[in-house]
Amino acid sequence: MKFNIALLAGDGIGPEVINEAVKVSDAIAKKFNHEIDWTPALTGACAIAAVGVPYPDETHEICMKADAVLFGAIGHPKYDNDPSAKVRPEQGLLLMRKKLGLFANVRPTFTFPSLIDNSPLKRERIEGTDLVFLRELTGGIYFGEKGRKDNGDTAFDNCVYTRAEVQRLAKKGFELAMTRSKKLCCVDKANVLETSRLWRETVQAMEKDYPEVEVSYEFVDAVAMRLVQWPNSYDVLITENLFGDILTDEASVISGSMGLMPSASVGEHTSLYEPIHGSYPQATGLNIANPLATILSAAMMFEDAFGLKAEAEAIRNVVNKSLEQGVVTEDLASKGSKAYKTSEVGDWLVLNL
Amino acid sequence: MKFNIALLAGDGIGPEVINEAVKVSDAIAKKFNHEIDWTPALTGACAIAAVGVPYPDETHEICMKADAVLFGAIGHPKYDNDPSAKVRPEQGLLLMRKKLGLFANVRPTFTFPSLIDNSPLKRERIEGTDLVFLRELTGGIYFGEKGRKDNGDTAFDNCVYTRAEVQRLAKKGFELAMTRSKKLCCVDKANVLETSRLWRETVQAMEKDYPEVEVSYEFVDAVAMRLVQWPNSYDVLITENLFGDILTDEASVISGSMGLMPSASVGEHTSLYEPIHGSYPQATGLNIANPLATILSAAMMFEDAFGLKAEAEAIRNVVNKSLEQGVVTEDLASKGSKAYKTSEVGDWLVLNL
Ligand SMILES: CC(C)[C@H](C(=O)O)[C@@H](O)C(=O)O
Ligand SMILES: CC(C)[C@H](C(=O)O)[C@@H](O)C(=O)O
Repeated sequence: MKFNIALLAGDGIGPEVINEAVKVSDAIAKKFNHEIDWTPALTGACAIAAVGVPYPDETHEICMKADAVLFGAIGHPKYDNDPSAKVRPEQGLLLMRKKLGLFANVRPTFTFPSLIDNSPLKRERIEGTDLVFLRELTGGIYFGEKGRKDNGDTAFDNCVYTRAEVQRLAKKGFELAMTRSKKLCCVDKANVLETSRLWRETVQAMEKDYPEVEVSYEFVDAVAMRLVQWPNSYDVLITENLFGDILTDEASVISGSMGLMPSASVGEHTSLYEPIHGSYPQATGLNIANPLATILSAAMMFEDAFGLKAEAEAIRNVVNKSLEQGVVTEDLASKGSKAYKTSEVGDWLVLNL
Repeated sequence: MKFNIALLAGDGIGPEVINEAVKVSDAIAKKFNHEIDWTPALTGACAIAAVGVPYPDETHEICMKADAVLFGAIGHPKYDNDPSAKVRPEQGLLLMRKKLGLFANVRPTFTFPSLIDNSPLKRERIEGTDLVFLRELTGGIYFGEKGRKDNGDTAFDNCVYTRAEVQRLAKKGFELAMTRSKKLCCVDKANVLETSRLWRETVQAMEKDYPEVEVSYEFVDAVAMRLVQWPNSYDVLITENLFGDILTDEASVISGSMGLMPSASVGEHTSLYEPIHGSYPQATGLNIANPLATILSAAMMFEDAFGLKAEAEAIRNVVNKSLEQGVVTEDLASKGSKAYKTSEVGDWLVLNL
């Protein structure tokens, strides 16, 4: 097969981790007789620096034409404590999600046996955790009307959802649950929010179409607790944009392997794969960042975007092997043992595929 | 001194835990020569059952006249999976907060040395944790305009904040930080929300009035992570209503002592003290619920509402003693040792004051 992949490296360590994912993907392609055409494009702070906007039209066109998008990370410290900056890297991210119609963010949290002791949780709490969040990504308070009144003294953000938006996200949730243990948890705040009541009633109405799926409804505050207490009691969770932002990040640290967690954003026009970690500015250019989350995101791309399960498994297997053999960057290296460089980890994976 | 306290026991285990808090408070009053007048009033599902509304006017008047309010818990399973119920216990809670002007919810999270192994976190992660959230409680998306359009197919919730609302909450945060380690963290989502940008710019403008306080600004998703990773890196945190709902609940479980965490809601007209746990319907009437969170809430009331530090300390000391000696309800009893009843714990505390 032949694929055309848009390559959005972004800022900070983005280019370094993307580089390793490209190496590994190319090696896999070679091994399985595929051909990949990579088309690099600008996004984030580097796009602002180059052309004044964080998600240029040219980048959008490249993504629209691609079979999939592989994304690094964006963000730059110069924007961090300046909430008033008019043009910001995050705007590019939001615009990209909206224009590409990436309405479902798929965020798995799972454990690696060899890394389980990195978790802040006790072993018996975290063992066996294997859950997936589906976060709605193009609606809610992120995209509602926002602004100021009263000479700037009053601010507002409107949270809006339509039944159709909830349905298309929930549909993905039910379908995913059917391929897993058939348990679906709808996370909302239906005791307070009207949008949550719309979520709950919409999901309730869909239950009859998936009679095998056991659906539970939990309030977001309760989930924030249970994720820490009994993460392995969850399987597939669906939720709206802002709750998803908070809960998926919370979930990502419980496994102790945040630097390894991949994600996908799927939608109307294409799908995008990215590590969940940020642009880690302090490490930029040092060749120390952990490339595994990006490499595992590429594995998700092979499996979900191209339907190539064996290729995905091959990547996951060699990643597991590197972890078991301690071929890891400094964030995972155990005391006293060698920390490999970003590029060395990539080289090792290619060699051992 | 003489106090007039409104007693809102509420639903589920509310009456049982409130009962023990009254016993202990009365004993403390006697010991320190105070007099307490308790005025019981209805709220929650029991108020709906009795008079059709969850926060009757009569209850409001009793609270307005009181020196403080001691609150149990509200909620009844019959409302849990019926988002369409027109009259709901939670409405009473929200109405009460609004009408009493309880704009600041004070939620400490701390550890008890004897209970540290109950935490889902590893000992080295949780040890030394002692943080306080100030959650804004009468604004934001909880109280903005909400409703439906398009024949019910579109739902919306508006999140609104004024500069004055942020200032009065932040002022409490700065003042609290001054009495502690002078570290204040403002939690927001200023990279996305206009209300968060108002929060951040308002707090930034107040920094000059508290030159000794070191202020940090963190995004809500980052805080959701760091609370699990390094809870002891936080001290005082301020945040808006919905973020506070999620994060304070997340924080409450990390200590492993959720059943012991007290809280206060302070405001314009009076202040209210309540355990953070819910109405625990399954345990209703069984005399097994842990009364310590309510008793520690009474201690907060003595200290903060009445300025009686010695009385508060006396309560905390005897609670610590009960924990050390294993005089605890079944949720805390170690395997093989006796679980005390709710009322037995209260009796023991009174006897050992
Ligand atoms: C950078 C920010 C706008 C973004 C979000 O809130 O969606 C990020 O936190 C994420 O989760 O991808
Ligand atoms: C019951 C509910 C309305 C309430 C809230 O969301 O404020 C509760 O979760 C709380 O934190 O006191």
